[in-house]
Amino acid sequence: MTLELRTVIRQVGMLMIVVSALIGAAAIFAVYDHVQGNVTDRSDLIALLLTSFIGTVVGGVLFLLGRASTEALGQREALLLVATSWIIAAVLSAIPYRLWASFRVNAAVVPHSFDSLASCFFEAMSGLTTTGATTVEQLSTLPRSILLWRALTHWIGGLGIVVLFVAVLPLLGVGGRRIYRLESPGPSPDGVTPRIQDTARSLWLIYVGLTLAEVLALKICGMGWFDSVCHTFATLATGGFGTKDASVAAFDSSAIHYVIIVFMVLAGVNFGLYHQLMQRRWRKVRKDPELRAYLVILLVATGVVTISLMGNGYGDGRADNPSFAVVVRDAMFQVVSIQTTTGFCTVDFDQWGFAAKATLLALMFVGASAGSTGGGIKVVRILIAGKVLLAELEHAYRPRVVRAVKIGRAVIDADLKLTVVVYVLGIALAFALGTILLMMLDADAGIDITSAATAAAATLNNIGPGLASVGATHHYAWLSGPSKLVLSVLMLLGRLEMFAVVALCSPRFWREE
Amino acid sequence: MTLELRTVIRQVGMLMIVVSALIGAAAIFAVYDHVQGNVTDRSDLIALLLTSFIGTVVGGVLFLLGRASTEALGQREALLLVATSWIIAAVLSAIPYRLWASFRVNAAVVPHSFDSLASCFFEAMSGLTTTGATTVEQLSTLPRSILLWRALTHWIGGLGIVVLFVAVLPLLGVGGRRIYRLESPGPSPDGVTPRIQDTARSLWLIYVGLTLAEVLALKICGMGWFDSVCHTFATLATGGFGTKDASVAAFDSSAIHYVIIVFMVLAGVNFGLYHQLMQRRWRKVRKDPELRAYLVILLVATGVVTISLMGNGYGDGRADNPSFAVVVRDAMFQVVSIQTTTGFCTVDFDQWGFAAKATLLALMFVGASAGSTGGGIKVVRILIAGKVLLAELEHAYRPRVVRAVKIGRAVIDADLKLTVVVYVLGIALAFALGTILLMMLDADAGIDITSAATAAAATLNNIGPGLASVGATHHYAWLSGPSKLVLSVLMLLGRLEMFAVVALCSPRFWREE
Repeated sequence: MTLELRTVIRQVGMLMIVVSALIGAAAIFAVYDHVQGNVTDRSDLIALLLTSFIGTVVGGVLFLLGRASTEALGQREALLLVATSWIIAAVLSAIPYRLWASFRVNAAVVPHSFDSLASCFFEAMSGLTTTGATTVEQLSTLPRSILLWRALTHWIGGLGIVVLFVAVLPLLGVGGRRIYRLESPGPSPDGVTPRIQDTARSLWLIYVGLTLAEVLALKICGMGWFDSVCHTFATLATGGFGTKDASVAAFDSSAIHYVIIVFMVLAGVNFGLYHQLMQRRWRKVRKDPELRAYLVILLVATGVVTISLMGNGYGDGRADNPSFAVVVRDAMFQVVSIQTTTGFCTVDFDQWGFAAKATLLALMFVGASAGSTGGGIKVVRILIAGKVLLAELEHAYRPRVVRAVKIGRAVIDADLKLTVVVYVLGIALAFALGTILLMMLDADAGIDITSAATAAAATLNNIGPGLASVGATHHYAWLSGPSKLVLSVLMLLGRLEMFAVVALCSPRFWREE
Repeated sequence: MTLELRTVIRQVGMLMIVVSALIGAAAIFAVYDHVQGNVTDRSDLIALLLTSFIGTVVGGVLFLLGRASTEALGQREALLLVATSWIIAAVLSAIPYRLWASFRVNAAVVPHSFDSLASCFFEAMSGLTTTGATTVEQLSTLPRSILLWRALTHWIGGLGIVVLFVAVLPLLGVGGRRIYRLESPGPSPDGVTPRIQDTARSLWLIYVGLTLAEVLALKICGMGWFDSVCHTFATLATGGFGTKDASVAAFDSSAIHYVIIVFMVLAGVNFGLYHQLMQRRWRKVRKDPELRAYLVILLVATGVVTISLMGNGYGDGRADNPSFAVVVRDAMFQVVSIQTTTGFCTVDFDQWGFAAKATLLALMFVGASAGSTGGGIKVVRILIAGKVLLAELEHAYRPRVVRAVKIGRAVIDADLKLTVVVYVLGIALAFALGTILLMMLDADAGIDITSAATAAAATLNNIGPGLASVGATHHYAWLSGPSKLVLSVLMLLGRLEMFAVVALCSPRFWREE
């Protein structure tokens, strides 16, 4: 079958129009800020308006050039659409950063990391993949409208990924879908398209509902409206872009920390379960094996980190002697932030003891639930891979004993076992390759192995901060352009769960059969 | 079925008698050295004789306590026997080191790393698993008889592993056997035991033949008899224990380097192929897909390292400007030494550029052929895992296309695919866990991540030297006792291909069903 490119082009056009509209929304906020007299420099407004205009025009042309189709997309078209969507959205989202850097009044005298195209693309990709790794050295240099747009890229990316993995891909039968619904639903008799639209609408409502709830909760706890909105976008998308260089540590309120903890945990749950909740299938949600494992891991890891912090203290991270309640809060915040792959910080965990750091690093790879906005390998895959490992072990000394591998009541078939284990191995390979590339590309900058490895881990698993030179109090601005592109690719690989991106690089994908 | 422990005990007793006899052989060499008047201190002779005596007595008692059985061992008994054999042999082999350290004349004034029991056990395990990682800071402190015994542990371990994986396990149907013969032979109608003995005898002859050939070749190239014998033991077992601190660099002769290269390559080939050669199945050997891949990887890696050395030079490794012939020789030596997991050095490759080091590190994990004396994941597993990865990738965008994964003409079934991918993942996990444990156990010694990670990689894959503080010019003496035990476990894990060791740690193994 030949690839049906024209339907893909139409969908990409549509996407560009939507993104341009949201850039337009940020521009409206810029107008509001100017009217309020908060700022005098109008470079941000011009950058946002110009991008919004260009994006709408190009998107409109693509939309008209493409072909409307009432049929469902083929598997290859779907993968191609998914990968190009994220890349094109990242390019479009990067333009306001770059334009603003050129237009700002002090552009000639004060350098900014957004002067570099690679940094702008990195920042945009980091936003849309809900990674939250930043190239901005000082957030106070950015106008509020640009900060809002940065947070908004998280929100779009988070919604996009949930709709994609929970509503669209499972029904199209594309790569790894069976992780999201262990009982395979198969196309319903009344056609695929209506079901996708139904599920997507329900997910959209849930996402908006959670957004409103968190904004209000943060406002009530004393955060301003602007910070509440930005942090909500970053929390629900498990992104991690904040508005302050100190991240959430800038807000010295336990209530705010706990509100963010709660919503990070909620964002790390399979959104399919919320969909089930709305259909009043309580039992299904209560018995969900991934949800249970996800919560158990969060609690156990919080315990481990708390114990490690009680033993070793915070290192140089905090001079005063924190109370037990504060230690528990900080441990829980960081564990939840890393496992859900949000990447917010309330403490410089790079100063913690090795046991605490090793736990966080392991959690980076575990990640959140499948079908959530979080990244990482995903809890359900870890569960399956672990059980397969144990079963294979027994197979070595009892070759004739065959035991079914189960998650909850669902039996994992041979195909799914292989898919999951190969996925985990693929992540390990991408991690190793990314680390090696960084070591080679930034040898001149004197990159150390810890920074290179954790930069690769923190982008591949869509977290944000790593350790050492990319730790909680650092940024990614110092890396070379090529390294930033490598990390952008890792973010995309992790976000689209490898297959979509790697498939496009395979010659067989393009061959007609 | 209950575990039939008494047959296991009898076999272990037999093993102890054999090892004791070989310790006795080293003692005879000590007598020869004393008669020749080379040494005056007789501590080595006493240590070896005493151990040989104790080992024979204990082994004899176990042999008589055990039960003779004409039946083949069960799967669980076989795994138990394999794991305990290596551990008990390591304990027995460590005793001469420890006793010598106590008996030597200057024991009270000059400390030696063999004063530590953990170091002795590490050294013995390193020998028997043909790893070649050493805790001895200066080899010149060791008497020649102890150096010989050290090399002999390699030779025993190498022969043991080949017989085990090529002759014994495949016919017993135990863990991972299908890697060694892609077409499953199944028990022959004339019973299992005779076939095992036939194959074992043939492998033994091949091993002894190669040994004689290399000793002569090295002698002809100008090495002394003693060094020739020791280096031959270490080469054919892909071990790496030498007789000089500078390893093979101490012998400044291209001929010697090339002889060792050739025999390392030969030792990294599946010994089953030599068995086939003796039965004149030329075609089978010539078309062997693993053999071809193994040689291609060696050549390509040599090319990559050569280019990298031409570009970056040897770093601080060598001051003078080497000719192209020397660069190729050194690159080939190190590539062959690392991929076959021997671990000999002719240059301090820790000083090489990052690209060369990364290539060597990747080769550590690839390893030699299945059924050779080499370690690592093994070329055939890498081949299968790579093809499975590609097939899974295509599966993501063409769910209905089913393509058979083949190695040569053999189709890899679903079970074997999963086993192989799980194995690779298991190695990755053991590597990560080992690195983390080392970082925690030797935090006080200020261990860096490169040393910890490459120490774990170099022991798990049975190579020997790593990078940084465990690099070519360093040793493992400085690590703490617990770290040495962790690394000893990694060596055993790698050598017995995980299953035998991990199975024993699983409660299900001991449960009767």
